[in-house]
Amino acid sequence: MQNNATATSPCDIRDLAFADQGKRHIEWAFQSMPVLQIIRKQFIKTQPLAGIRLSAGLQVTAETANLLVTLRDGGAKIVLCASNPVSTRDDVAASLVRDYNIPVYAINGEDHAVHESHLTAALDHHPQVTMDDGADLATGLHTKRQESLPDVLGGTEAADAAVGRLNAMAKQGTLKYPVIAVNDARTKHLFDNRYGTGQSTLDGIICATNILLAGLNVVIAGYGWCGRGIAVRAKGMGANVIVTEVDPSKAIEAVMDGFRVMTMADACALGDVFVTATGNQRILARDHFDRLKSGAILCNAGHQNVEIDLAALAKSASSHREIRPFVEEFGMRDGRKLYLLSEGRVIASAEGHPASVMDMSFANQALSVEHLLKNHASLEAKVYPVPDAIDKQVARMKLESMSIKIDRLTPEQEIYLASGCEGS
Amino acid sequence: MQNNATATSPCDIRDLAFADQGKRHIEWAFQSMPVLQIIRKQFIKTQPLAGIRLSAGLQVTAETANLLVTLRDGGAKIVLCASNPVSTRDDVAASLVRDYNIPVYAINGEDHAVHESHLTAALDHHPQVTMDDGADLATGLHTKRQESLPDVLGGTEAADAAVGRLNAMAKQGTLKYPVIAVNDARTKHLFDNRYGTGQSTLDGIICATNILLAGLNVVIAGYGWCGRGIAVRAKGMGANVIVTEVDPSKAIEAVMDGFRVMTMADACALGDVFVTATGNQRILARDHFDRLKSGAILCNAGHQNVEIDLAALAKSASSHREIRPFVEEFGMRDGRKLYLLSEGRVIASAEGHPASVMDMSFANQALSVEHLLKNHASLEAKVYPVPDAIDKQVARMKLESMSIKIDRLTPEQEIYLASGCEGS
Amino acid sequence: MQNNATATSPCDIRDLAFADQGKRHIEWAFQSMPVLQIIRKQFIKTQPLAGIRLSAGLQVTAETANLLVTLRDGGAKIVLCASNPVSTRDDVAASLVRDYNIPVYAINGEDHAVHESHLTAALDHHPQVTMDDGADLATGLHTKRQESLPDVLGGTEAADAAVGRLNAMAKQGTLKYPVIAVNDARTKHLFDNRYGTGQSTLDGIICATNILLAGLNVVIAGYGWCGRGIAVRAKGMGANVIVTEVDPSKAIEAVMDGFRVMTMADACALGDVFVTATGNQRILARDHFDRLKSGAILCNAGHQNVEIDLAALAKSASSHREIRPFVEEFGMRDGRKLYLLSEGRVIASAEGHPASVMDMSFANQALSVEHLLKNHASLEAKVYPVPDAIDKQVARMKLESMSIKIDRLTPEQEIYLASGCEGS
Amino acid sequence: MQNNATATSPCDIRDLAFADQGKRHIEWAFQSMPVLQIIRKQFIKTQPLAGIRLSAGLQVTAETANLLVTLRDGGAKIVLCASNPVSTRDDVAASLVRDYNIPVYAINGEDHAVHESHLTAALDHHPQVTMDDGADLATGLHTKRQESLPDVLGGTEAADAAVGRLNAMAKQGTLKYPVIAVNDARTKHLFDNRYGTGQSTLDGIICATNILLAGLNVVIAGYGWCGRGIAVRAKGMGANVIVTEVDPSKAIEAVMDGFRVMTMADACALGDVFVTATGNQRILARDHFDRLKSGAILCNAGHQNVEIDLAALAKSASSHREIRPFVEEFGMRDGRKLYLLSEGRVIASAEGHPASVMDMSFANQALSVEHLLKNHASLEAKVYPVPDAIDKQVARMKLESMSIKIDRLTPEQEIYLASGCEGS
Repeated sequence: MQNNATATSPCDIRDLAFADQGKRHIEWAFQSMPVLQIIRKQFIKTQPLAGIRLSAGLQVTAETANLLVTLRDGGAKIVLCASNPVSTRDDVAASLVRDYNIPVYAINGEDHAVHESHLTAALDHHPQVTMDDGADLATGLHTKRQESLPDVLGGTEAADAAVGRLNAMAKQGTLKYPVIAVNDARTKHLFDNRYGTGQSTLDGIICATNILLAGLNVVIAGYGWCGRGIAVRAKGMGANVIVTEVDPSKAIEAVMDGFRVMTMADACALGDVFVTATGNQRILARDHFDRLKSGAILCNAGHQNVEIDLAALAKSASSHREIRPFVEEFGMRDGRKLYLLSEGRVIASAEGHPASVMDMSFANQALSVEHLLKNHASLEAKVYPVPDAIDKQVARMKLESMSIKIDRLTPEQEIYLASGCEGS
Repeated sequence: MQNNATATSPCDIRDLAFADQGKRHIEWAFQSMPVLQIIRKQFIKTQPLAGIRLSAGLQVTAETANLLVTLRDGGAKIVLCASNPVSTRDDVAASLVRDYNIPVYAINGEDHAVHESHLTAALDHHPQVTMDDGADLATGLHTKRQESLPDVLGGTEAADAAVGRLNAMAKQGTLKYPVIAVNDARTKHLFDNRYGTGQSTLDGIICATNILLAGLNVVIAGYGWCGRGIAVRAKGMGANVIVTEVDPSKAIEAVMDGFRVMTMADACALGDVFVTATGNQRILARDHFDRLKSGAILCNAGHQNVEIDLAALAKSASSHREIRPFVEEFGMRDGRKLYLLSEGRVIASAEGHPASVMDMSFANQALSVEHLLKNHASLEAKVYPVPDAIDKQVARMKLESMSIKIDRLTPEQEIYLASGCEGS
Repeated sequence: MQNNATATSPCDIRDLAFADQGKRHIEWAFQSMPVLQIIRKQFIKTQPLAGIRLSAGLQVTAETANLLVTLRDGGAKIVLCASNPVSTRDDVAASLVRDYNIPVYAINGEDHAVHESHLTAALDHHPQVTMDDGADLATGLHTKRQESLPDVLGGTEAADAAVGRLNAMAKQGTLKYPVIAVNDARTKHLFDNRYGTGQSTLDGIICATNILLAGLNVVIAGYGWCGRGIAVRAKGMGANVIVTEVDPSKAIEAVMDGFRVMTMADACALGDVFVTATGNQRILARDHFDRLKSGAILCNAGHQNVEIDLAALAKSASSHREIRPFVEEFGMRDGRKLYLLSEGRVIASAEGHPASVMDMSFANQALSVEHLLKNHASLEAKVYPVPDAIDKQVARMKLESMSIKIDRLTPEQEIYLASGCEGS
Repeated sequence: MQNNATATSPCDIRDLAFADQGKRHIEWAFQSMPVLQIIRKQFIKTQPLAGIRLSAGLQVTAETANLLVTLRDGGAKIVLCASNPVSTRDDVAASLVRDYNIPVYAINGEDHAVHESHLTAALDHHPQVTMDDGADLATGLHTKRQESLPDVLGGTEAADAAVGRLNAMAKQGTLKYPVIAVNDARTKHLFDNRYGTGQSTLDGIICATNILLAGLNVVIAGYGWCGRGIAVRAKGMGANVIVTEVDPSKAIEAVMDGFRVMTMADACALGDVFVTATGNQRILARDHFDRLKSGAILCNAGHQNVEIDLAALAKSASSHREIRPFVEEFGMRDGRKLYLLSEGRVIASAEGHPASVMDMSFANQALSVEHLLKNHASLEAKVYPVPDAIDKQVARMKLESMSIKIDRLTPEQEIYLASGCEGS
C-alpha cells in the first residue's frame, strides 16, 4: 500500500497526493450533471438508502464519483472497486477517499492479483446492494460468497454482455436477487448513442487529424441510432454525408432524411472519411481498400475493432507508420495512402462521453437503486428493465435542470385519451 | 343513371365525359408511384390474383385508380365503390370505367341511399377478397351476406378505427376471415406521418395565408411522428420552432434536436403560427386565446377538429369573418385578431398527400393481397399486421425505383450477427 | 366608365361592387406589413408629405394599397394608375376608391388606349413626386409635360431596366429631377431574392405538381442570391441538392455549404427536379434534354423565360400536352417524358411574394419619398441609391415589429472601433 | 548554435534530431493541401521563380513548409526566418533544413537578440522577393538595407495591421516596391473566417470543456463572417443559437436565418455558452457578469483578448482557480460560478486552422509571387490586393482537387450576359 497514511477511510489507491486534482475533476463534472444534483438534494432529505451497505464495481471516473456521493448522501455505506483496471483515474480515487470519505480500492493499471484483492474488499463489505458494470460483484457473490446472498436486496448492471449472462442465470434459476439492467433506459440511449456518440465521434476525428470537415464526403456505415447521430452532426459540420446500410427500411429513411445512400463499394470511390457504426464485422474489407481514394481516413464508432478488417488492411499495405498520434498511415502498393484512426477501435473524444451524457445514465442508476429498495419485497430474482416511470422521471428532471416547463394533461384530456378517440 | 350509355363496364358514375381529364390525372399520379409500377410489372408476369373476385371500398382518387389497375393486371376481377362519398373524383371514376375497364359505383356527393346501392353492387360481386377503408365491405358481408363469407379468402383494412372494430370481432370469434391492417406498415408511417404530413402541413399554411415562414416563431404542439415531421420542415423553411409536449421523454428529445420547448401558455406570448399535432382535444383553449399575439395563425395537423377549442374561440370573439378562403378572422374584445385555418380541421395541401406517399401505402396493400392469397390456408380469422417481409420489400422496391443500391450481408456477417457478438 | 356612380373619388375602375372583397385583401396584407404599419403611425404624426401631390404608377395590389394609404396618411394627395395592366386587382382598386378615398385609374386587362388615358389622368395630377415601376410617369413628364417638370421634387423607381434608362438620361443631362432607385436596398434584396424567392419557388413547384420533395435530387442552376435561397429551402424540405455554376468562387462556396456541385451534363443523369436561377439563357438546352431521366421536372426561378431553351425542348419532343394546370408533358422520341412548369416563366406561389416581403420593399419606398422631400434642395438630377441610413432604419423597424431588441454600441465601443483596432 | 553539425544548409535551429518528426508533420499537412500540390506540379514544369532569391518571414509551421517547398520547386532560392518566435515548430525547422535543403533561422522561444540575428540572416540573402507576416523583412529592407531595395521586385504581406503600415508608407511615397496584401482574397476569407473559424471555435470549446453542445443555448455576439460561421456550426451540433448584434441589417439577417436575436443583457439570462466574435471590446462586461447563469462558459473567437472585460470579471469574482487546462473558474459573491476559456484569447482547436484552410491562403501567396515576377515592370510601389483572376484560379484548383467539374459559359451565353439582359 502506498502513501495512504493519512487516508480517512480504508482504501488501496495510488497516492492521496493526487486528491487536489481529483477534487477539481469531480467538481467540474458535477457542474454538468444537473440531474444527479437534483437527485442528490432529494436523497439528502429522503434518505432512501439510510444505512444500506452498497458495493460498487464501476469505472473510477469523475462522473462515477458524483454518483457515489449522491448515494452516500442518500444514506448508503459504500465501497468502490474498479470494473475496468485501465480506466481508473487515480486522482479521482484519491479525492473520493480524502474529501468524500468513501473507501476506494482501485489503482490505474492494477494487475490481476491486485484487481482480485480489490474485488474481495468490496465483497467483504457484505453489500445489500450491488452496482456492477460487468457483473464482477454479482458473480463474486454467487460464486464465492453464497452465504451473503440472502442479505442482498438487489443490484444494477450497466454492461449489455453481463445482462445477457445474468438473464441466462435467471432462466436457470441460479440468480438469487433482482437486478435492474440500467443500460436500456430511453433517456440513456437518447443521450448516449444519438447525441453523445454523434458529437464525440466527430470530435475524435477532428482531434486526431485536424482536418476541416466542411465540403468533405463523409461515409457512414449503418443508420442505427449511432449512425444517424453521427450523420446529423457530420451534416451539421458542413460535410456531404453518404450512408450505407443493409436494411432497406433504414436505407429509405436515410434517403428521406436527405442523405445519399449507396453500396460501400460505390462509396469507396467518393469518400474522404469513413465511419463504421454497424455492430458487424468487415464493413470495410479487402475489396474496399483497393477502391479507396488516396488520403481516405478510416475510423470506427461501432463495436470493438472488428468493423474495419485490420488484418486485410495490413496485408494490402506495402508500408506502415504512425504519422500522428492515433493516425496510422498505410501505403498501398499502387502509391495510395490510407489513414486508420485509433487502431480501428471506437473513436471518441479524448475524455470519452461528456458528463451530461453520463448524468442521464447515472441518474437512472441512482433512481433504480431507490426503486430496488422500495420494492424488493415484490421483486423476483430476475433481470428487470429500468421502470418506465423512472425513465420519464429522469427526463423530467433534465428538463427541470434546464428551467424548461412542459404542459400536463388536464383531467378532461386524460379522459379523452383514455376513451381511445385519439389518432395521428 | 347518367350519361353512361357508352360505358364498357357496368357502373354508376357521374359522367363518362370527364374521362379524358381523369385519364390525365391517373397517368400523372402513376408517374409518382414507382413502387406500384414495379409491382404492376411483376403482377403482369406472375398473375397472383388470376381470376380472383375483389371488391374495393376505397376513396376514388387517381392514386387508388393506379392500385386497382395494378391488381387488375395481376388477374383480379374488380368492382369499386366509394368508402367516402365526398372524396370521389368523378373524372377518375369515368376514366376507370372507360379506359381501364373497371366497374365503378361512385358519384361525388352521393346521398345515403345511392351510397348504399353502390355498396350493394360491390357485395353482389361475391368478393373473394375485400379491400376496405372503413370496413364497409367487411361489415356488409358479416351482416347481410353471411352466405358469401365461406368464399372470402381475406381482406385488407386501411382505417385505424375500423381495425379496432375488426379486432373486437376477432376477440368475440365473430370475424370470419383474415384481415391485414395495412395502416401500420413502417414504410407507410415513415412517408405518411413524417414526410407527407411535414410537407403538406407547411404547404397548406402557405397556400391558405401566403405568409413568409422564415423568421417567424412556429409553435408545434406534440412531438410525435407528425409533430417532428412538421418541426423539421418548419425549421427547414427558416422558422424558429417552439415545441410543446406533455411527455417529458419526447420533450427532452425535442430539446436535444435543437428546438425550444415550453408550456403552451408561455408559447402563446411568442408564437406567430400554431400547429396542433397531438391527437388530443383543447390543446389551444380559452386561456390560450387570451394570451395570443394579435395576428396569430392557428391550425391543426392532428385529429379531427377538436385540438383547437372552436366553441371557446367563437365565444372569446366579438367579431368573425372569412377574410380569405380557408382563413377566418376572429376579432377579440381587446382588439387583437386571431386567424383560424380550415375551420380547425386537418390542414393539408390542396390535393392531399402526394402520390409518392400513397404509393408506399398502396404498395403495402397490393403485396398484402398477394400474401393473403398465397397463405390463406394457414391464416386464422383475425387481424394481422403487414408482414415485416412485405414492409421491407416495399422499402427495397422504393430504393430500386430511385436506382439506389444497398449492401447485403455477407454469409460471414450473417453468422457474426447470429452469434450475438454485435453491439452498438 | 362603369358602375362608379357612388365613388367618392374620381376614378376609372372595374366596379365598386368589388370593394368589400378588396377591403378584406388590403386588411389581410396590412397584417403582414408591420414595417409599413410603424411608418404609417409616424407619418400620421409628422406629416412629411403634407399637401404634396404624388402620382403613382405601380402594380395595383393589396400591398401597394397599403403603401398608398401610408403616404396618404402622411399628407400626400395621391393619384394611382397601373404600371402593369394585367396585374391590376379590380377589387383592390375598388376599395381604394370607396374605402380609402384614393383616386385610381386602373382596370385589369385594360387595352393600350385605356392604359394611356389612365397614365394621362396621373400626369394631369401635376405631381410633385412620382413613384414608378417602369418609369411610365417619369417618361411621360419628360416627354409630354415638360412644363410640369420644374414642380417635380423627385421620384422613386422600382424596376431595374428603367433605372438603366434613367441613368442614361442623367448622363446625357436630360433627367430633370432626382430619382431614388429603390430596388437595390439591402433589406429589399435579403427578403426578396433570398427568402422570398426561396419559399415561393418551392411552393410554386409543390402547388403545380403535388410531389414530395424529400429524398428527391433537386438541381439548382446558379448559386447567386436566388439560387442559394432556393438551395437552402430545398435542403430544408429534405431534398438532396445539387448545384451547377460557372463561377468557381460560387461553386466552391456551394461545396463548403454541403451541396454537391457538378456540371449540368452530369446533373442531368441524377436530377428529379431542375430549377434555373442564373440570369442567363439556355441553361437547360438541347444536349441536356437528351440526358434527363424520364419524369424530370423543369422550372425557372430566374430571368424571363430564356433559361430553359423552349424551342429546343419543343423540337426534341414527339408529343406535347398539358397534363395539369401549369404542367406541360413533353414526350421524347425514346419514350421519356419531361415536365415543364409555368411555360418556363418564373415559377412562384400562386399569389406572388408574401406581403411581408413587399413590406420591406415598400417601406424603403415610403422612407425614400420622405428623404426626397427633406433633401430635394441638395439633391441633383440623377439616380440615387436608397441611402444606407434608410436601409438600416427599415431593418430596425422590422426588428421592432418582431419585438426584437438589439444592442447599441457604447460611446467607448464607438471610440474603440474608430481607432481602427478592430479585427476579425 | 546547436547540434546542426550535419545540416546540409546553413541554419540556426533547435536540433536536427527533430527532423524525423518534422518530416511526418510536413507530409501529413501536404495531404490536406491539394491546391498547393497542383501549384507545385505546375511550378516544377514552368519554373516561374527560377533563380530568384526569396526571403520569407513567416510562422514556421508544417503548412508554411509546404509553401516554401512549392516555391523552391518553382526555382526560388529561399531563406526562412520566423515572423513569430513562439509559434516556431522546431521539428519542422529541422526537417526543412535536413530533408528539403532550405536554410532556416528560427528557434522556438528565441529571445530578441537571436530573433534579430535571424532576421539579419534573411536580409543578408539580398532578397528579390519578400514574403512577410508582419512586415519584418519589408521594414528591415527599408530601414537597414536601403542599398538592397533596387533589386527587390516585390513582396507579399499576410497581416492586416502591417498592410495598414505599408499603405501609409505608399501614401507618403516611401514604399519602394509593390506588395500584394494576400489576406483579402475571397477564397482565403471563405475558408478561414467562415468555415475554419466555425469548426475550430466549436472544437476548441469541446476540447477545453468536454461539454455536450446539443440542447444548450449558445450565445454568439456578432454576425459577421466569423459569427455566422460559428452560428451555423453550433446549430449543426444541436445547440439552440442566440445571436446578439449592433447592426440592424445583420440582426435581421440572423433572424431570417432562423436564429433568435436579442440584447446581450437578455441573452445573459438564457445562455449556457457565450462566444464573442465582434472585433470590439467589452462585449461581455460588468453588468453582464451579474446576470449570467451559474455555470456559464465564456470564450472569445474575435479579436485579441478585449472582447470579454477580463479586469471587470476578476473584480466581480470572490474566488478564482484553474479547474481544468484552459478553463478558469470565477466564483461570484452570490455563489454563481463562471468559466472563462483560454484566458479570453481566441479559442481554437489545439493545432490552429486545418491545413486545408491554410492551403487556400498559401495558394494565393504562391500565385501572387508568380504574378509579381511576371508583372513587376508594370507594377507601382504600392499595396495591391490579390488579383481577382488568382482568387478565381485558386477556387478552380480547389474544385479540381476535389474532382469537381463545373460548367463554362458558352460563347452565346457570354454575349447574352454582355448584352446586359440578365437579371435576378
